[in-house]
Amino acid sequence: MFYVDNRLQFPVRVETPDPLFARALQQAIGGVEGEIRVAMQYFFQACGARGDARFRELLMNTAAEELGHIEMLATAVAMNLEGAPLSMQEEAAADPVAGAILGGINLKNLLSAGLSAMPIDSDGVPFNMSHIYASGNIAADMHANVTAESTGRILAVRLYNMTTDPGMREMLAFLIARDTMHQNQFLAALEELGGAEGVFPIPNSFPQEEENQDFNYAFLGFQADGSEPVAGRWSEGTSIDGKGEFTTRAHEPMGEEPDLGSARPNSGAQSEQME
Amino acid sequence: MFYVDNRLQFPVRVETPDPLFARALQQAIGGVEGEIRVAMQYFFQACGARGDARFRELLMNTAAEELGHIEMLATAVAMNLEGAPLSMQEEAAADPVAGAILGGINLKNLLSAGLSAMPIDSDGVPFNMSHIYASGNIAADMHANVTAESTGRILAVRLYNMTTDPGMREMLAFLIARDTMHQNQFLAALEELGGAEGVFPIPNSFPQEEENQDFNYAFLGFQADGSEPVAGRWSEGTSIDGKGEFTTRAHEPMGEEPDLGSARPNSGAQSEQME
Amino acid sequence: MFYVDNRLQFPVRVETPDPLFARALQQAIGGVEGEIRVAMQYFFQACGARGDARFRELLMNTAAEELGHIEMLATAVAMNLEGAPLSMQEEAAADPVAGAILGGINLKNLLSAGLSAMPIDSDGVPFNMSHIYASGNIAADMHANVTAESTGRILAVRLYNMTTDPGMREMLAFLIARDTMHQNQFLAALEELGGAEGVFPIPNSFPQEEENQDFNYAFLGFQADGSEPVAGRWSEGTSIDGKGEFTTRAHEPMGEEPDLGSARPNSGAQSEQME
Amino acid sequence: MFYVDNRLQFPVRVETPDPLFARALQQAIGGVEGEIRVAMQYFFQACGARGDARFRELLMNTAAEELGHIEMLATAVAMNLEGAPLSMQEEAAADPVAGAILGGINLKNLLSAGLSAMPIDSDGVPFNMSHIYASGNIAADMHANVTAESTGRILAVRLYNMTTDPGMREMLAFLIARDTMHQNQFLAALEELGGAEGVFPIPNSFPQEEENQDFNYAFLGFQADGSEPVAGRWSEGTSIDGKGEFTTRAHEPMGEEPDLGSARPNSGAQSEQME
Amino acid sequence: MFYVDNRLQFPVRVETPDPLFARALQQAIGGVEGEIRVAMQYFFQACGARGDARFRELLMNTAAEELGHIEMLATAVAMNLEGAPLSMQEEAAADPVAGAILGGINLKNLLSAGLSAMPIDSDGVPFNMSHIYASGNIAADMHANVTAESTGRILAVRLYNMTTDPGMREMLAFLIARDTMHQNQFLAALEELGGAEGVFPIPNSFPQEEENQDFNYAFLGFQADGSEPVAGRWSEGTSIDGKGEFTTRAHEPMGEEPDLGSARPNSGAQSEQME
Amino acid sequence: MFYVDNRLQFPVRVETPDPLFARALQQAIGGVEGEIRVAMQYFFQACGARGDARFRELLMNTAAEELGHIEMLATAVAMNLEGAPLSMQEEAAADPVAGAILGGINLKNLLSAGLSAMPIDSDGVPFNMSHIYASGNIAADMHANVTAESTGRILAVRLYNMTTDPGMREMLAFLIARDTMHQNQFLAALEELGGAEGVFPIPNSFPQEEENQDFNYAFLGFQADGSEPVAGRWSEGTSIDGKGEFTTRAHEPMGEEPDLGSARPNSGAQSEQME
Repeated sequence: MFYVDNRLQFPVRVETPDPLFARALQQAIGGVEGEIRVAMQYFFQACGARGDARFRELLMNTAAEELGHIEMLATAVAMNLEGAPLSMQEEAAADPVAGAILGGINLKNLLSAGLSAMPIDSDGVPFNMSHIYASGNIAADMHANVTAESTGRILAVRLYNMTTDPGMREMLAFLIARDTMHQNQFLAALEELGGAEGVFPIPNSFPQEEENQDFNYAFLGFQADGSEPVAGRWSEGTSIDGKGEFTTRAHEPMGEEPDLGSARPNSGAQSEQME
Repeated sequence: MFYVDNRLQFPVRVETPDPLFARALQQAIGGVEGEIRVAMQYFFQACGARGDARFRELLMNTAAEELGHIEMLATAVAMNLEGAPLSMQEEAAADPVAGAILGGINLKNLLSAGLSAMPIDSDGVPFNMSHIYASGNIAADMHANVTAESTGRILAVRLYNMTTDPGMREMLAFLIARDTMHQNQFLAALEELGGAEGVFPIPNSFPQEEENQDFNYAFLGFQADGSEPVAGRWSEGTSIDGKGEFTTRAHEPMGEEPDLGSARPNSGAQSEQME
Repeated sequence: MFYVDNRLQFPVRVETPDPLFARALQQAIGGVEGEIRVAMQYFFQACGARGDARFRELLMNTAAEELGHIEMLATAVAMNLEGAPLSMQEEAAADPVAGAILGGINLKNLLSAGLSAMPIDSDGVPFNMSHIYASGNIAADMHANVTAESTGRILAVRLYNMTTDPGMREMLAFLIARDTMHQNQFLAALEELGGAEGVFPIPNSFPQEEENQDFNYAFLGFQADGSEPVAGRWSEGTSIDGKGEFTTRAHEPMGEEPDLGSARPNSGAQSEQME
Repeated sequence: MFYVDNRLQFPVRVETPDPLFARALQQAIGGVEGEIRVAMQYFFQACGARGDARFRELLMNTAAEELGHIEMLATAVAMNLEGAPLSMQEEAAADPVAGAILGGINLKNLLSAGLSAMPIDSDGVPFNMSHIYASGNIAADMHANVTAESTGRILAVRLYNMTTDPGMREMLAFLIARDTMHQNQFLAALEELGGAEGVFPIPNSFPQEEENQDFNYAFLGFQADGSEPVAGRWSEGTSIDGKGEFTTRAHEPMGEEPDLGSARPNSGAQSEQME
Repeated sequence: MFYVDNRLQFPVRVETPDPLFARALQQAIGGVEGEIRVAMQYFFQACGARGDARFRELLMNTAAEELGHIEMLATAVAMNLEGAPLSMQEEAAADPVAGAILGGINLKNLLSAGLSAMPIDSDGVPFNMSHIYASGNIAADMHANVTAESTGRILAVRLYNMTTDPGMREMLAFLIARDTMHQNQFLAALEELGGAEGVFPIPNSFPQEEENQDFNYAFLGFQADGSEPVAGRWSEGTSIDGKGEFTTRAHEPMGEEPDLGSARPNSGAQSEQME
Repeated sequence: MFYVDNRLQFPVRVETPDPLFARALQQAIGGVEGEIRVAMQYFFQACGARGDARFRELLMNTAAEELGHIEMLATAVAMNLEGAPLSMQEEAAADPVAGAILGGINLKNLLSAGLSAMPIDSDGVPFNMSHIYASGNIAADMHANVTAESTGRILAVRLYNMTTDPGMREMLAFLIARDTMHQNQFLAALEELGGAEGVFPIPNSFPQEEENQDFNYAFLGFQADGSEPVAGRWSEGTSIDGKGEFTTRAHEPMGEEPDLGSARPNSGAQSEQME
């Protein structure tokens, strides 16, 4: 269960409110690489964690941290929206910059939320919880979390580069640092789970002898001219999971042309399909 | 650009059509860990790839492969739907199993598609392309792809365990093998990009001295009782990226209680909020 | 503007309530080929109609009709849900058929709507208004409407085949008849707009001499073996719009391999991409 | 069933077309607090109404009214889009205001709808029918409708404040008045249903003695420092439903740490989770 | 910011795991009337609260409580999924009840989450954050919250009636009690804000003299036969907000037939529309 | 199965990068009338095709072509985004045009994709695969495809009119030509299937004598004043399918006022609804 402290995890200051930057910050709240996503992803992974109980605690602890990040960003959005124009025609007529601002923000921040943050991305698209990956496989979850923290840090870096406001840069320098830690933290969890050779292929509980042995370490080419595909670490040498040897070859169709036959009567097809 | 061969990449056989298994297979087509997702993800990553041209080719080559997997699965869905009941009342009355089948399938496979596959998941939810992660950062993309292939292989294993049909198991043993290779292939790409110490923290182009140095390698605790959070590889020792030393501490609020002040006149708030 | 009469457009009778059929009927309400779609599609096409005012009236008139169809179907759903089990464990234990029913219905019809209809499809997915096609081109709109009425009639036929209830068959025989008329009605509108040779290619206002003349009537092949694509009415003879002559050939790439160059500094890419 | 009159419910005039305001008006059509939402919500509530037949009529009557509001707003959007630039480069180069307009509108209004309205919100997001709340409980529905009319009126007020066009203000003054009436109308329905003491807690048909009596009128605190939560009318005195007495206290965990045990074999987890 | 305690807010016990009931419980997690919705709604309302600071605290405090409810329900879902069949053909062949169970659950709970909870509803549809209503108007927000708690309690009551498991009933009796309190708590907040006469019409900051005075307290009829609409408390007497007198009349169109004229050249319309 | 050639189907050149035009081009990728839609629609129609095997090949061949179009457009988006501002405050302050550009693009193209294309439309909304119409009826599918190519060509024409860049116009002149061919190609398929009189009403396999004969060729009026609806080709003469004679009349309600009776006990309704 959760408790709340009314103070923010880290100070949020805005020296010069910038309504367009408020729109950009929305991506860090409701974008697919944003903070709602990680908070809820770790939360649901924790709720479904089976096996070593430390992972449940690791995940729920960080979920609590991420909830605080949403709060910080939502505060930052509202502060950047201060001073946004509420009226349209006069502003745009008098001042192209003001017009560009009204045209450039997510209007829902104004029309639906009264100059406050929403769980939407930088183009006004609401967050969809299908992006919460919680697979029931702890290694896949940890790997997904490194991915989430990577795209999250990329986003935070882009936002940092986009603003010169000292307060916003200070907040983002904190969030970037946390993403650095979180990447490392979930990488560390993967190390505990056995590192690349212990963890992969995920899931490691499937008996690999039931895989098709002709295809599990072959880099297949689908080049139209039949040439071999581009060479690299992936095309020869021992596989990264240490359980196979990479090979390369062009692939040719092994199956037939599919034939579903005629349509069934009463199936709503055209008569010609039933012949 | 793409070319097509009308034959399938690998044979698809169904000995005993099973409409409920058709529903389960839909997850591998239109689920968030399914084949549409990987095909389109590699496709868009390829289209936006900057830098070393080999990655563009690696990605587009595998996108072509995955398109063939969608086709195989769609064929398998249609073949498993053969013999599904088209009529409701009589079946359910006469035969509880038939009733359970009609109640158990995605009805859209019947009502919208006439016993064919659709780009939906196992509960009938259409695939949403927001799940195509293509970040413009090649390391994040490769990491996302390992994640996608991990959840994809987990799904294929679950499907394999769910059926006893020899044809379906043969097809899934092929797909599981490909997922093994694809996990390794993208792990190999990460090795080419420098391995954990070269790649992380993603993006590696951001000057780490601009991060908040108090927080980039600290495992913070948010336990209500103020205790330190659960210990593990993540709480001490050198960080996985080799650039820091893990520490642990409980976190306390550093910011103030946020105060957005009064609502602006004409902003649609209650009068009481404007005082 | 709209008026309402509390009576139904056509009688709705259910002799034997069938909760599973209620689920199937939901597709005709909230499915992409359902009645909300056509009602709202004609409504928005009418609201945006420019040119000959008769089309606006034709569309808004039929929008009113379709609203009445939603009402009929919603009534039918509620009537079929009569008698659905509200309790789970006891029913399933005692009676597999009852268990199959509870497992087979959209649970939201019970949990969210208290045994009433919802704007969802037969798998419980809510209707999304992106399916309202209103292009601002009257010919495209009429063609889209024929399509909508075709998939609508296919669905109604599948539902008709799925039930033996006399009341439901009577209602569906009415709706199928209306779909027949609506297909013809919008085909008639296309005839008024000039028939195939007058209407196509849509939009007919674009000067065809600005099209690439090598490609506007060529059936291009993308067969991997370089063979010509499958022959038919589309591969030779005068085009259906009467403005060209069909030819056939295999297509080969005319562009280069795309090269987006290096990533920009500060764009969140890896350092390696910026070299 | 429904009838249509080709005239508008209320005059729609635009003195100075304003494409950016057209975008804002889209929120009143396809936003979650817009007119499609209320029209369809009352419609589905009416279709599922059980008990006193007057509520069905009240709801369907107002549904008809709201359909007319969508039509008015769609007309207003098209009229405000008159004169929007169709061409990009030249305009933006010559005239920053024109460029800001093209950048500021929902491009779909131009690209998909040819300068007409669409069922989207002010950021181009299509309306999703999951927002149609029709619970099968008449009191909850009436309460939801007051809420919908409240957010609807807030939106209309914000739009009114955003424009100075006399025609648009006249239309919005009409719509704001209707929202005033609709708030009152559904509040009146709640009064008929028994007022706060008769209606609450919703649903009033559940025997309250089966509730957990320690928690049904207690204001629980989740402050991290263990302090009591903020005091107010909600923390002491008789409850608003007249059936309890408010108390306040900090809450502490009553459950254990959850433990789901090991993962099952064949469930796709890692081997380590199955130990 | 948030803290976590690893113990549950209230005990979660399941005596007889019931996979179908797990599906039903998903509605209370990811349904539009579920716990994610209220947790996130109060959270975002708190983040955007302007004016009296007590409301921010009231909201954030209850957000913390609701997060704990999600956790309880997610635990309950996983516990009810214990023993669900992982294999399809054999079960359904041998045992219709087992077949009905596999057909009756959200397959994603098994295929995507390995027998754990997900942020989806009872039909497998992921929660969409557009359902977070946070209007920037504190009275509308409080009213929306009463609505949310009403539909939430209806759902909990339906779930309670659906199960006979003592552990589940105990948990639901707790949640139902909390919904009772939360309805009262937000009603109490509305009383603090002035009660019906002080609060309505929302927003109360708009000068009512700018409303169209002919329409703000008139119950308008849209009956096709021109009759007056159904009478009730809403058709005569003083309005609930105390600021008007209800009247009733049939409405007739006051606007003209809309005429958008010809389509513009280069707008993608048919030539016939441009004449 | 599919093969890839790394070169583009047709050259993509951009003389003057235009970030706002990049946003517009996104509609042709991820809009409902865009290239993902047609590629995936033909793909799924092919996978489910029953009857004459030529249609499967026709569809899969053109699916391969359309995949190449997505690639061309994605390349064009990335090329037009070259030079887009990455920083916000300074640009907007110094240069209104630059500010308008940043406000005018889909920020996700920058924040999520690093100046690359995404599967989103011109307002940043991700493509939803529910738009893949594959009905199991070959005639409906062909008709749907003509519709898709019509809206696709309208969009391409609007984009062509919006730009003056010679490279972009050359690419669009190619795509417009292909849409001309594809309209004709699917119209030709309909001619092979029997033309209007053979194909309609879709599905032609339903015995028309089971339709309600009073309603299958009657143009019904729903005008509130009881007048006949607007006359046209649809109101008299032989129907387009050659199987009926058009008639016209005003429709009056044939059903009763629906009455669902009282709510069931334990169904979560108010007590008053159960009386």
